[in-house]
Amino acid sequence: MTKSLWTIGIDLGATKAGIAQVDSFGKLHHKVIVPTAHKESPEAVIKDMVEAIKSLCQDIQDQPIGIGIGIAGQVDPEKNLVHYAPNLEWKEFPIGAHLTKHLHIPVTITNDVRAAARGEWEYGAGKGSQNLVCVFVGTGVGGGIVSNEQMIHGHSFTAGEIGHMTIDFNGPKCACGNIGCLEAYAGGNSIAKRAKEAIKNNPEKGKGILNHVEGQIDQVTAKTVSKAYHEKDPLAREIIQDTIKALTFASINIVNVLNPQHLIFGGGVVEGIPEMLESIKEGIQQHALKTAARELKVLEGQLKSNAGIIGAASLALKTFGPES
Amino acid sequence: MTKSLWTIGIDLGATKAGIAQVDSFGKLHHKVIVPTAHKESPEAVIKDMVEAIKSLCQDIQDQPIGIGIGIAGQVDPEKNLVHYAPNLEWKEFPIGAHLTKHLHIPVTITNDVRAAARGEWEYGAGKGSQNLVCVFVGTGVGGGIVSNEQMIHGHSFTAGEIGHMTIDFNGPKCACGNIGCLEAYAGGNSIAKRAKEAIKNNPEKGKGILNHVEGQIDQVTAKTVSKAYHEKDPLAREIIQDTIKALTFASINIVNVLNPQHLIFGGGVVEGIPEMLESIKEGIQQHALKTAARELKVLEGQLKSNAGIIGAASLALKTFGPES
Repeated sequence: MTKSLWTIGIDLGATKAGIAQVDSFGKLHHKVIVPTAHKESPEAVIKDMVEAIKSLCQDIQDQPIGIGIGIAGQVDPEKNLVHYAPNLEWKEFPIGAHLTKHLHIPVTITNDVRAAARGEWEYGAGKGSQNLVCVFVGTGVGGGIVSNEQMIHGHSFTAGEIGHMTIDFNGPKCACGNIGCLEAYAGGNSIAKRAKEAIKNNPEKGKGILNHVEGQIDQVTAKTVSKAYHEKDPLAREIIQDTIKALTFASINIVNVLNPQHLIFGGGVVEGIPEMLESIKEGIQQHALKTAARELKVLEGQLKSNAGIIGAASLALKTFGPES
Repeated sequence: MTKSLWTIGIDLGATKAGIAQVDSFGKLHHKVIVPTAHKESPEAVIKDMVEAIKSLCQDIQDQPIGIGIGIAGQVDPEKNLVHYAPNLEWKEFPIGAHLTKHLHIPVTITNDVRAAARGEWEYGAGKGSQNLVCVFVGTGVGGGIVSNEQMIHGHSFTAGEIGHMTIDFNGPKCACGNIGCLEAYAGGNSIAKRAKEAIKNNPEKGKGILNHVEGQIDQVTAKTVSKAYHEKDPLAREIIQDTIKALTFASINIVNVLNPQHLIFGGGVVEGIPEMLESIKEGIQQHALKTAARELKVLEGQLKSNAGIIGAASLALKTFGPES
């Protein structure tokens, strides 16, 4: 990497952190993975991250201008504090202060899904958009909202929790405590759960899915359902149709309430069945307000698993760069 | 009115336009009402508005610095154009150019509900808020969103159509063409429709509501249901409970997706039964994400029927005033 203006982007998840050099054009260079699971304390994770960052810096003449981190949890970017990261089991941890103490490089933080949305907005499918919504459908469902050329953060930095939008107030209970949330239909965990229930209720109908896991029902995941879907297995198709229906109505809500120009989908579930975007597009054009939907572009994310790292790095560039 | 810095605020609806002098503190002074229904053309409405504005200006030494108009329809504020105002039956009408031609005063336009939201934000219940959502529950349901201290307009200036958020994808068809929209449960038209259907299905149960309209079922309105509700009529209470349920889930969606600090309710349905806000608050605290809801304030609007005029005037002040 020859560019002198560069940042470190980090996507900090419950099992691993992706850490990479990112240049000022949003291009990802050297990337390392640091395990974060089963660590006795946040400080132990920090120690591993510090070593990885030092090794990323050692062959480059200029220091990075900053570090950006997207964290799977609730954060306070103003205090550089992780309020609560349930899967990491972190509470009120001042990550920014810890990293800066060891590295003497400024740190800025955000939520991991908002980081990924920023990546798609700054360097991916939504580049240059003034009004954009990203929806990431993985194990859970999250998102990020850009309006009037600004990333919306909300009063306590939680704006964008699109997965916890009720689309069926008579629907199933969601893990969050709410009822009929998008995530309860479209998240990977919910897809697997619904598949397992359906197989238990009708083992004959479940054969197509079970074939992929040697008959072990507890091994069924969203990926298994996705595989069976591509083989036109009737049960898998039913489950995915429900997923598409939920994503379609959530999209209609996004379009009617926020009127974005770009609606971008990412995450494992969508990457497994990208053709679902066509059905979602059709549903939006059929049901959403005409003026709101007319110029809408529904797109697949471009940055895939690097969206969070690139978005976090771009936040650092914006925060600490020459134009900040 | 002695203040030299003042504007004209207009709330332009399908049957009448409220036009008033508004000072730079958002205080409404002299107000006139101009009928807009049954006019042969938009130009005829403009003629009446011009006369009213002239009469409002004649006793004041200084000219208003601008005119702000909130219009019941889809507008393009950049072109000062009404795209489509269904109830006025206007299409692609350049209202700004017409008014300026006659008055030589600059004009800025917005949607009427967004104007009312701006009024509550600048001078009403949400004064000073950086993150606010207003929901107006009248004949229909609309709203306005302020995020990062900016009113969100969206790509084609339609952001804020909160009434057309699906909360029950197995629900009734909405007038907009979508399914299970908030408006299909909570709007005044829907309340009246549901009451009439219930009375037809069970005339005995409908007596309490029918008493208010001398037995004339076609005279039943949301106001009638509201009156019967206050008398603890069982059918009216059922209908209003459904309305509250719909408003609660829509509020949860707003809180989870947008994380406002202030959620403000206005409009005739809420003004008729303001105690419904307590139930909505409880529902939000029970079901919304804790971090998003913790510091939320649910409030009733303060400006009532003048919110639109004051908000439109404040837009004119912002657009043409000394700080613009």
